[in-house]
Amino acid sequence: MRIALLGGTGDIGEGLALRWAFHSDHEVVIGSRDPERARAKANDYQEEIESRGVDTKLTGFENAMAADRADVVVLAVPAYHIADTVEAVAESLDEGDILVTPATGMKRDEGGFHYHKPGAGSVTKIAVEAAPDGVPVVGAFHNLAAGRLTDLDAELGIDTLLIGDDESAKSTVGSLAEDIDGLRALDAGGIDNAAEVESVTPLLINVAMNNDGLHDLGVRFD
Amino acid sequence: MRIALLGGTGDIGEGLALRWAFHSDHEVVIGSRDPERARAKANDYQEEIESRGVDTKLTGFENAMAADRADVVVLAVPAYHIADTVEAVAESLDEGDILVTPATGMKRDEGGFHYHKPGAGSVTKIAVEAAPDGVPVVGAFHNLAAGRLTDLDAELGIDTLLIGDDESAKSTVGSLAEDIDGLRALDAGGIDNAAEVESVTPLLINVAMNNDGLHDLGVRFD
Repeated sequence: MRIALLGGTGDIGEGLALRWAFHSDHEVVIGSRDPERARAKANDYQEEIESRGVDTKLTGFENAMAADRADVVVLAVPAYHIADTVEAVAESLDEGDILVTPATGMKRDEGGFHYHKPGAGSVTKIAVEAAPDGVPVVGAFHNLAAGRLTDLDAELGIDTLLIGDDESAKSTVGSLAEDIDGLRALDAGGIDNAAEVESVTPLLINVAMNNDGLHDLGVRFD
Repeated sequence: MRIALLGGTGDIGEGLALRWAFHSDHEVVIGSRDPERARAKANDYQEEIESRGVDTKLTGFENAMAADRADVVVLAVPAYHIADTVEAVAESLDEGDILVTPATGMKRDEGGFHYHKPGAGSVTKIAVEAAPDGVPVVGAFHNLAAGRLTDLDAELGIDTLLIGDDESAKSTVGSLAEDIDGLRALDAGGIDNAAEVESVTPLLINVAMNNDGLHDLGVRFD
């Protein structure tokens, strides 16, 4: 499958790119607003994978061109860029392509991080409202620490939660998630359940901040 | 230590009572608005523990009398009874006693369960506002499935998150939590971080509802 990571030069995009390129045969395309930067990062990631003895080919393009080449398009951008990123690539999306959103909204005060619930109800819902007709949105990969994801020596052994109203798209994304070693995908229900999933991200940071020896935390449901 | 479980006849109260009575030497006092019911339940729990070859003594009292006898008072009542329960027992609390709140606020729609954030900011904050001066509040035990807690044959292997502004009280409650086999206590920060902890409860229900074979879920941070 061809997966585009828009914002694939940022940390969560880098982590997913490296993991898919290293653990699977999926074709990974890095997207960025700056095509030069996308190409340079794709090159860096490819070198990182090849240094581990795995043959792979990552490419980099401007976001809309990256989206055009992919079946699954991951919006690895901050919450406040979700809507404009979807709009910028909308014409490159074919019916049946899948949009994936790992973003969450957070604000910080002196005591810790807090979920900043958007007016739409969730960041996932912002992506749903921006998506063209016929392009389902799946929320996934919210609660993965980028530092752990990008370190291919780090074992995961954690869960990611899927949110979506299109069961077939959700199943496809769940399968892509489980192609990453050590990642289990669990279904957390429809789009209206997204806020509870997105609010785990600030919680993970708060727990890491308040307990010695815990960092880059993930979550496991048992 | 003497622990009162107000609302100790309900399911989460029952689970904590059984676990402390079975795994520790703490003296467990069951509180209820109805003292007869408190005594009957204390008796039932004692029989359950003794049938497993462990000698224990549980007692039951009306809530205020139960609180009067305890060092740590757990408000095992629904969120909408937190304030009136604290008011009903306020005169029985001594300075230095600790109030513990495991309650969360939830509402349900057709897609699943959702965190219902109170106007105060969190259910924990409601308890803080109702508590007498000199009586610290710690949020804990939110994300434990009652069915699993009450089944003494069920292994836990999960985490509970602590919330509170009084570090000494939080440490005491963390230590009580870890006296239960298989429960690890993690610090999630101050009272202002409570909403992110409380909103894990509806998430656990949503995940259990949407994945075959998962039920009575707990969470583990790794």
